[in-house]
This record gives sequence, structure tokens and C-alpha cells, in this order.
Amino acid sequence: MREVWSAPVRFAECDQGGVVFNGHYLTWAHEAVEAWWTALGLPFAHTGLDQRIKAATLEWRSSARWGDTVTVDAELDRMGSSSFTVALTVRVGERVCCVVRTTYVAVADGLPIPWPEHVRALLQG
Amino acid sequence: MREVWSAPVRFAECDQGGVVFNGHYLTWAHEAVEAWWTALGLPFAHTGLDQRIKAATLEWRSSARWGDTVTVDAELDRMGSSSFTVALTVRVGERVCCVVRTTYVAVADGLPIPWPEHVRALLQG
Amino acid sequence: MREVWSAPVRFAECDQGGVVFNGHYLTWAHEAVEAWWTALGLPFAHTGLDQRIKAATLEWRSSARWGDTVTVDAELDRMGSSSFTVALTVRVGERVCCVVRTTYVAVADGLPIPWPEHVRALLQG
Amino acid sequence: MREVWSAPVRFAECDQGGVVFNGHYLTWAHEAVEAWWTALGLPFAHTGLDQRIKAATLEWRSSARWGDTVTVDAELDRMGSSSFTVALTVRVGERVCCVVRTTYVAVADGLPIPWPEHVRALLQG
Repeated sequence: MREVWSAPVRFAECDQGGVVFNGHYLTWAHEAVEAWWTALGLPFAHTGLDQRIKAATLEWRSSARWGDTVTVDAELDRMGSSSFTVALTVRVGERVCCVVRTTYVAVADGLPIPWPEHVRALLQG
Repeated sequence: MREVWSAPVRFAECDQGGVVFNGHYLTWAHEAVEAWWTALGLPFAHTGLDQRIKAATLEWRSSARWGDTVTVDAELDRMGSSSFTVALTVRVGERVCCVVRTTYVAVADGLPIPWPEHVRALLQG
Repeated sequence: MREVWSAPVRFAECDQGGVVFNGHYLTWAHEAVEAWWTALGLPFAHTGLDQRIKAATLEWRSSARWGDTVTVDAELDRMGSSSFTVALTVRVGERVCCVVRTTYVAVADGLPIPWPEHVRALLQG
Repeated sequence: MREVWSAPVRFAECDQGGVVFNGHYLTWAHEAVEAWWTALGLPFAHTGLDQRIKAATLEWRSSARWGDTVTVDAELDRMGSSSFTVALTVRVGERVCCVVRTTYVAVADGLPIPWPEHVRALLQG
């Protein structure tokens, strides 16, 4: 597990319940996955592939609030032949707020293709 | 399955890939769940309970784009004792873009409590 | 002044003060300006020009809240040679929440150009 | 002029034209104004006053894009008796993207009141 991204919670991200609205966790997840790819040595934007998010799951354990700084740890959760899943732990200090898992497929000419070997090797560290 | 919510895709919801950014599906899901409760006769804001989203899953099948109008159908997916899950189908016409499932718990004094019988009965239609 | 756009306030648009966060008025303004162009007979996306927002002003008079439906009226505020300004009144029923003015320029090859005569004629109604 | 806030542009902030959607500048402006108050020694949330945004103006000079890091400089633009205006320069390196001016009033019991002397003194540096 590798710390890949961090940011103070923004006022506009908090809803009238005083906590971060759930959809913003996917905004953070996107930034964290980009940073994870870059940390692995393969900037997301430069793979030469058309990557698409296929699925996401989010499980909340506690709330993030204005004034908190959120940090995201990333690790490979599952490597399949045509898709892989990243597990992202969003936390405030040691307190976990949400575990987000995002699954990506590679697409060429509109059809899913297997992830190339060099990408698979790199993601598996 | 009941049609509960619909809206034109907004320009600001589309990313530089020309499709709706994934996090906005949770914004739509929130509106759709509210509308579903209201359609069932129990406005979400008036249950007298502290409801919290506990988990969400999203599975994309196609993209929504600027110019599209998205429609959301809702139905109860699973009724547990302390949580329930709503399945929300986001579609453009008959074409399904994403199936979102959101799970809610009821909380009192910071602890999860069982959903009251009248709420369970109502959600189960 | 012409009514061009309307939508219920979304939960995710309200901040922890219980009112719509100010930035979302520009999201609504974009939708309203698009609708205004379409109502005038010239869909924004089909002018064959590269339009860019150059400036915006917002003056709030009251708040919009969750449960409100906002409506936007549009009219040409000022027609210059290379820019024009639209005045957008965002209201809940008859109560005005905000007057937004957005100014657009036409750009070709990276440089501002005069708005073509047929666009000027059309905008001036 | 004081540098008060900075952040990498987020993917979800960029629209299908490949540039940051205009409304997000107000999200950044809010964070920058908070940081400016804190830098002046008076956290925004702890003034004991009900502050409200009354007006905003934005003038764009260039675009911010994904991959850019935006920085915001703040300074007092105008101090009135019942309102003050902050000028916020949003830039990428030395290149200015947008000048945002936000005007705030203090409210008590629903009516505007003069800003207290100690707040005026502090804002005027």
C-alpha cells in the first residue's frame, strides 16, 4: 500500500449534513489512481491505451469534514486478463473514511482488449 | 422498477473525454433515491431518522454525453434488518449507462439501529 | 426576457450552510445560455465559431435551497462588436436569487474576431 | 499580494473543451479566501459573524488545464463600511488565468451590519 494523494477537504465538497458528499470520493479516487500510475512509472495518460472505468465500489466507515485533510493509499486489488481493480483507502490521519475500489478495462476500436504484458507486470509491482 | 428521476446531462458534468465524469452518477443517484422515497409516500427528509449511505456500487455499460437526457429507474434490491439497498438503473432512452446500488443504514445516537417496521413495509411495497 | 431553463436544486449543490454553493450558479448559467441560443434558433454548439467565456459577474439577492426549483430568465444585456453579454436572472418563483451576467467572445486561430452579422442580428432579436 | 492557496487541476474539473469549467474558479476562490483570512490571523469560521458572499466577478485571460497547478494570490481590493472585496489572481506559474473578485457582507439577524473595527483593521493589514 502506497500513499499516493492528499488534499484538504474543500468547503464546496461538504453537504448540508456537514460531511463530504459521497460523489466527491470518486473525484479523489480518479486523482489517486492517476498518481498511483505515475508513481509506478507509467503515467496514466501515456499508456497509449484507451482505459475506461468499468466499475466502482465504495464502503464508508466514517465521514470526512471541512477542516480535515484526506490522504489516499493505493494498491492493486485484483489483476485479471482484461481488467484490474485498484483498492484506494481514503483516510483522515489513521481514521479510515472510505475504501474505494475502481476497475478499469483497456479498449481498442471500441472493444475490450487484454492489458499488455508490460502494463500487467508494472501494476503487479 | 419505477421511473423516478430524469435530467438533461449538463455541460459541466462531461469531462475532457466527452463523457459524464463517473462521480456525477452518485449525484444523480442521490436525487433518484430521494424521489423514490417520495414516490413511495415517505419523503426521505421526513422519516425522523438519521439515514446514512453505507456503501455504493456502480457498473458502467455505456457512456452518457452532453445532449443526452438521463432517466433513472429505482427498485428495492435487498432489504436487511439494519440496511437496505436500492438498485438504480441510469439510462438514455432504452440504452443502459450504469447500474448504481446504494446501501443505507439508520443511525440513532451514533449507532446503527434496525429500520422501523413501517419503513420496511413501505420500501418493500 | 425569456424563461430558458429550470431545475430542482440538487442535494449535492447545497453546502453546510444549507444554501446552494455559489459556484453552481455558473453551472446553471451555462445551461441557460445554451438554452437561450437554442431558443433563438442557433444552437450554441452549431455556430461554427469558437466561443469563449471572457467574464462573469454574479450578484446575489437571496439564497436557493434544497427543495427549491430554480428558473432562469435570459436576455441580451449588451452587444459589442467583439463581445456580447447575457443577463441571466436566477429565481425561485418570483423571488430573485442571483443575477448572473456572462460575456462571450468569438475566437478564430486563437485571436478574437467580431461576431458575424447573422449572429449579432439573431442575438438582438 | 500574498500567495494563499495552490492545487493541481483535477481531471473532473476539466470540461470537454479540455479546460477547467468556469464554475470551479469559485470553488478555488472560496478556499483561497478562507486561507487569506487564516493568514491574516482571523480564521473565517471563527469571526463570530455571519459572512455572506454578495457578489463575484471573474475575468479570464487564459485557460487552466489538467496537468497544471493553479496558485492563488489574494489582496484586499476595496474596504467599504458594510462590505469588502478581495481580489484573487488565479495563475499557472506566472501566467494569469483569471482574476476573481468576491464581495462579502456581514449579517446579523438577517440584516447587513457594518464590519467590526477589528476585522476592518486586520483586513487592511
